[in-house]
Amino acid sequence: MQAQIITIGDEILIGQITDTNSQFLANVLDELGFVVQRMLSIKDDEQELTNNLKLALESADCVIITGGLGPTKDDITKKTLADFFGSRLIESAEVKQQVEKIFARFGKEIPPASYGQYMIPANCVPLRNENGTAPGMWFATEKGQIVVSLPGVPIEMKALAEKEVIPRLKSYFKLQFNLHRTILTVGVGESDLMQLITTWENELEDKGIKLAYLPNQGRVRLRLSMRGNNKEKMEEMLEHEVERLYHYIPKYIYGEEETDLAEAVGELLKEQGKSLSTAESCTGGYIAHRITSFAGSSAYFKGSVVSYHNDAKMDLLGVKKSDIQKHGAVSQEVVEAMALNAKKTLKTDYAISVSGIAGPDGGTESKPVGTAWIAIAGPDGFITSKLFSYGTQRKQNIFRATNAALNMLRKQLLK
Amino acid sequence: MQAQIITIGDEILIGQITDTNSQFLANVLDELGFVVQRMLSIKDDEQELTNNLKLALESADCVIITGGLGPTKDDITKKTLADFFGSRLIESAEVKQQVEKIFARFGKEIPPASYGQYMIPANCVPLRNENGTAPGMWFATEKGQIVVSLPGVPIEMKALAEKEVIPRLKSYFKLQFNLHRTILTVGVGESDLMQLITTWENELEDKGIKLAYLPNQGRVRLRLSMRGNNKEKMEEMLEHEVERLYHYIPKYIYGEEETDLAEAVGELLKEQGKSLSTAESCTGGYIAHRITSFAGSSAYFKGSVVSYHNDAKMDLLGVKKSDIQKHGAVSQEVVEAMALNAKKTLKTDYAISVSGIAGPDGGTESKPVGTAWIAIAGPDGFITSKLFSYGTQRKQNIFRATNAALNMLRKQLLK
Repeated sequence: MQAQIITIGDEILIGQITDTNSQFLANVLDELGFVVQRMLSIKDDEQELTNNLKLALESADCVIITGGLGPTKDDITKKTLADFFGSRLIESAEVKQQVEKIFARFGKEIPPASYGQYMIPANCVPLRNENGTAPGMWFATEKGQIVVSLPGVPIEMKALAEKEVIPRLKSYFKLQFNLHRTILTVGVGESDLMQLITTWENELEDKGIKLAYLPNQGRVRLRLSMRGNNKEKMEEMLEHEVERLYHYIPKYIYGEEETDLAEAVGELLKEQGKSLSTAESCTGGYIAHRITSFAGSSAYFKGSVVSYHNDAKMDLLGVKKSDIQKHGAVSQEVVEAMALNAKKTLKTDYAISVSGIAGPDGGTESKPVGTAWIAIAGPDGFITSKLFSYGTQRKQNIFRATNAALNMLRKQLLK
Repeated sequence: MQAQIITIGDEILIGQITDTNSQFLANVLDELGFVVQRMLSIKDDEQELTNNLKLALESADCVIITGGLGPTKDDITKKTLADFFGSRLIESAEVKQQVEKIFARFGKEIPPASYGQYMIPANCVPLRNENGTAPGMWFATEKGQIVVSLPGVPIEMKALAEKEVIPRLKSYFKLQFNLHRTILTVGVGESDLMQLITTWENELEDKGIKLAYLPNQGRVRLRLSMRGNNKEKMEEMLEHEVERLYHYIPKYIYGEEETDLAEAVGELLKEQGKSLSTAESCTGGYIAHRITSFAGSSAYFKGSVVSYHNDAKMDLLGVKKSDIQKHGAVSQEVVEAMALNAKKTLKTDYAISVSGIAGPDGGTESKPVGTAWIAIAGPDGFITSKLFSYGTQRKQNIFRATNAALNMLRKQLLK
């Protein structure tokens, strides 16, 4: 089965935003077993949408469209789709009720400007949007092809895709299987990794398995892919290769699939019944944010002191003024004191601390921008610390130091 | 002048990576004055590229292609383009020299696997790639349309675009100007905003100005666009409309163009010489992260207490146990105590605090998931707090509460 994705929005075509919806949907369709032939971005224009949808339906069994569903007049998708299918817009009581519910959350009635949100093409099945006023829409062509229209706001689109679209596509189409296994590594560069697994990698092609390297912020994801009808056999084959891979690089693998490093650390803490706090300087709360992004993190995460200013390091974390003066805020002495004191003050089993120079300014000759000290404090007075040197880009330095800190704790928890 | 972008690569179509090249090129083309009609992603397939390039050249004056230029056999762009233009691959001494230079950096000679890298279609102008072995290629059709082929690796593609492609396009085409102004609003929904500015909006069309609404996480961006030859006149007209817009919705505008809300708040703090701290429960450090993402934030941001566990609220922020027991951690009493104590402990002029239920669990009937109390403490004992009700999605609740908190402070700073 072939699928295509069409995203609508001038903001994509002028380069104002990255089209992340297409990636998300491509991934969804691929996992369902579709072959995604093409992804297309077009402007909010009736003729453009009509022509390109027609072209897509010449070869695709399923077309997913996102965008152009807002209440404002530059949003043309609904009207265009009604015309395309020779249908017309009608009021949907079901959608109206849902739109009422959305506005009721803010203690409001539906404003006149949003009345249009519950008008939908008569020939579609509306899909309930829990997060916004634009419903999704499900159309079937005479030949049985499926066209789905979803709002462009990523969070609304994703929730609709997961709750409404995926289950419907699964039961509507008989699909082959695209299987992927993604193994997540950290602490090893792409080329070193390639050398470590070269023997293993060379045998994959003959088995019908494709391998891709996806490096990002100091981590490398390894993705194995297969396509076919015998799901069990393929799963077995992939499992076998993953097991072999673990033997080649045991200490670099921190998880599989979409596991976040913070989530992996959280799972280990939960398993071991241990708690965590953080003391952050240059990462500015980002480690705490990464940890608390996961539901259930309150079971092991107690809190963080973001000691951005030296006063906060002294007042809240009891770092000695003399240590800051003698060694500087970015030093082994200070970062270890931060971890030990966070652990004590926040009454946790472990504490992570980071002190560094995120940049772009603030570097010196001996401590250039990108320098970061990271420490882990643990039970029975355990303390360890390590020096890292990153580049000159502020956000990248924050992300990398965060991943390095989480990985240091992960390795400690595995010991 | 019309332009189109074609990106080639299976990794895009299975959703393995986000296609950031398209956004970059769309932005480049838009700024040069092209109208980007379409952006397309296709697989590494000769027929797919041939068909789609043909289709693109039916309406486009310029087509930029990225990807499919590596040394491996699934990279088909060069051969396909040679065939498309009825040309053939020849060895280029110029490209060979450059490829030799690239390998020499690693102390290597060109390996046999990379000999193909200096074969190029006879009818193209090679564009020098300083960062990799695949040259860019510049083709002109018989009608004078331009086709540019660039490598898919973002760093190589970007350097080539900037050094080689942009100057050539500028001198080859006589282009109009695309001008945009983006005004950022917060604290008002899309439909309410529409009603507030309807009079202003209705007059735009006659002036040749397009307006787009771009909602995201509780903020709405308003983008004004114009196209024409008289750049100065258009800039003046846009400036005039932006000024008028400020009169309609003064309190909702927090910035322009790429300004982040946290950056806007930072600018206000800097201007007023005031400092800030945060006390975060459900936002888990995300407010601190947003603030410290900006260079120079250490001038006004002193730190944060992420008091995720109630112990941390009591031990680090002096929140009374009796208040937590009586009113709950998510209450006006507790959130105000958090802000007042963060301000005091971290010795700042202002403090933001948030206490809420991010979800998906932890809600009660009276305080469902999505409930958040936000407080701002300021000079002279000033304290204000507000109750917000969001939805059921954890990350969205964290993002929205963060934006609401930053906006509350922004409004306070503007008073």
